[in-house]
Amino acid sequence: MHRRLIIQKFGGSSVANVERIQNVAKRITSYKKKNCDLVVVVSALGDTTDELIELSQKITTDPSERELDMLLATGEQISVALLAMAIHKLGFEAISFTGAQGGIITDTSHTRARIIQINAQKIKEELQKGRIVIVAGFQGITSNHDITTLGRGGSDLTAVALAKELGADECEIYTDVKGVYTTDPRIEPKAKKLNAITYDEMLEMASLGAQVMQARSIEVAKKFNVPIHVRSSFSPQSGTMIIKEAKRMEDVLISGITINKHETKITICDVPDKPGVAAKIFKKLSDSGISVDMIVQNVSHTRKTDISFTVNKSTSGKAMKVLTQVARKLRTGEVLEDLDIARISIVGVGMKSHPGVAAKMFEILANNKINIKMISTSDISISCIIEKRFTETAVTQLHKSFGLSR
Amino acid sequence: MHRRLIIQKFGGSSVANVERIQNVAKRITSYKKKNCDLVVVVSALGDTTDELIELSQKITTDPSERELDMLLATGEQISVALLAMAIHKLGFEAISFTGAQGGIITDTSHTRARIIQINAQKIKEELQKGRIVIVAGFQGITSNHDITTLGRGGSDLTAVALAKELGADECEIYTDVKGVYTTDPRIEPKAKKLNAITYDEMLEMASLGAQVMQARSIEVAKKFNVPIHVRSSFSPQSGTMIIKEAKRMEDVLISGITINKHETKITICDVPDKPGVAAKIFKKLSDSGISVDMIVQNVSHTRKTDISFTVNKSTSGKAMKVLTQVARKLRTGEVLEDLDIARISIVGVGMKSHPGVAAKMFEILANNKINIKMISTSDISISCIIEKRFTETAVTQLHKSFGLSR
Repeated sequence: MHRRLIIQKFGGSSVANVERIQNVAKRITSYKKKNCDLVVVVSALGDTTDELIELSQKITTDPSERELDMLLATGEQISVALLAMAIHKLGFEAISFTGAQGGIITDTSHTRARIIQINAQKIKEELQKGRIVIVAGFQGITSNHDITTLGRGGSDLTAVALAKELGADECEIYTDVKGVYTTDPRIEPKAKKLNAITYDEMLEMASLGAQVMQARSIEVAKKFNVPIHVRSSFSPQSGTMIIKEAKRMEDVLISGITINKHETKITICDVPDKPGVAAKIFKKLSDSGISVDMIVQNVSHTRKTDISFTVNKSTSGKAMKVLTQVARKLRTGEVLEDLDIARISIVGVGMKSHPGVAAKMFEILANNKINIKMISTSDISISCIIEKRFTETAVTQLHKSFGLSR
Repeated sequence: MHRRLIIQKFGGSSVANVERIQNVAKRITSYKKKNCDLVVVVSALGDTTDELIELSQKITTDPSERELDMLLATGEQISVALLAMAIHKLGFEAISFTGAQGGIITDTSHTRARIIQINAQKIKEELQKGRIVIVAGFQGITSNHDITTLGRGGSDLTAVALAKELGADECEIYTDVKGVYTTDPRIEPKAKKLNAITYDEMLEMASLGAQVMQARSIEVAKKFNVPIHVRSSFSPQSGTMIIKEAKRMEDVLISGITINKHETKITICDVPDKPGVAAKIFKKLSDSGISVDMIVQNVSHTRKTDISFTVNKSTSGKAMKVLTQVARKLRTGEVLEDLDIARISIVGVGMKSHPGVAAKMFEILANNKINIKMISTSDISISCIIEKRFTETAVTQLHKSFGLSR
């Protein structure tokens, strides 16, 4: 008979204190009682990672990335050891592994390493002994034995990669919410939990600001068709399945609405409309380590055009500094910064086959006197930048009009 | 020209906070400026180890030793990363290693592992690149890649073992005192710092309660003739050299006085005086994991005798429980517990060649009306158990009479 293998990933808030660790241990062992094989991936306790970063900042604002990884990796090592103890206490066998011991081999890009291989032999051996295997998330080791970390949300990636490598039947991502919602329930009380969502939709949701799961890990799950179940560590109810194609009772047009209030809109006015100018601008920004998000260039009627784009608020000061120099060199007009914006996006594979979704979105916003400052679209999403103060109205109206509140 | 290689070990109090870590970094780099090769061994920050143990105790009072090692090893990993960052900040090259990365291979006795081998290749490579190498103390790895710890004071052992393996010119043990004193300066203000002491004397001092350095590490240093320099991390002054034979201006009789207030004296009365009885008693104690220290058996005039010994206060309750059962079985008399004792020991290689040292010690105590409850001697030490309330008087008088206050 096939023995089910389940990967379970618990985030920092699920193991924030001793009591929660004990709860997580109870949930894990309840699966063991059902005779499943289990590999558990854990993040650092609560805010440990942030506290360690803060500690390093007291020594240097520009720490060596190798040493930062050395430091941060201790967070998950603490979690796995404590969780193993808690499981032992319940009378079950368990063994903890660091990323290195779990065979998570990465490249050498410290603080944002990529998994290049998993040597899962030791994990398989321990599973065969009937043990619950607990692996430190977020971390790995290079072939030269340097400790690396996988970047924010890296534990999700550890879980998905292990699920793929071990051929797991399911990869459960435990979090502090009950699943993926049609929109942020703190903003729209009528938000509904989705029973299923496609990888593509989830990818849009993740990168557009829904903080349930790391985008990279969803890409990997999609690539290898790993079935993911996002669910709450505080509730026995099932959450949201992330799968290849969501089988729904009816063809829903859009699955969710995402909100991002962490961006700044920057406009460079009167940019000479000739080839290579935009390239120069964005090259300068990327050289300074600034990620640019939505980019919109208006059609030009003269020989000059305006270019607008968004950057994360934390980098907008730096971006403005870089751009002021660039603007002088390229003889453009003013550089304008708009901090008071929000991005509202609607996401859904359904919109592919339904024309007029964009028009409907713009109409809903217009009917509510909300001005649209920028528009950007993808195959399965439409994003609008609006004034931040209209966020709640926009979300509520869109949620209602697209039938998500039912 | 020979390039000096120095091993420096910094204990937890030397790196208790960011400011102290920065101080340690300054000291280390001052050596680098003198063109020395440096391998630095660091303990966990301040009370981190105790805090981690406390955390584990909240989950289980009987944690798996493998998992406890997994947990505790994070303490030193944090220290090495932060210290490397602090050295970088001063403009020097440094790289941190966990015990595993430093090639510290141990046996599988978790929480008290023994070093069986050091694969120092990576350390040597980094030294050749001109880098300061920082190694996590107290920890190692088994040949099966399980993380181990070396027991309390294990960082000293890491330092000494590395000094031996790398053929270091000196092994500096940095601590929060200025060196090894003739006795505890908190008890006897006239205590003097010793410039030099032999391995044997230091070994007696360490195991008799002077908390400057771990006994096992001194044994290793003695075995391989590693020159040790115990000194303060808060002062530029030199401390105490621990060497094979101390060259002193004059032949001092004793080097120091040690005090131990952490023991309980237990007496089993009327033990049948026949072969095998003592063996049975002490076998039972060792089976229960209780270490016995001084043992005294009085000469018997009848067919019964009294056996007295000391155990650490933390185990005396358990010992009394075990012994009450043993006493019943072996038909001995009462088992008495005396919690109110202190051990005073005088230590010195000089006493080997001087008869009458013991007599002088007893006389000094007698002159001060201090009753001796037990006596035990070794080649280079004499220990007396006295009532705890006489500790200060005994130390002061012995210190003066043996000429240590000069």
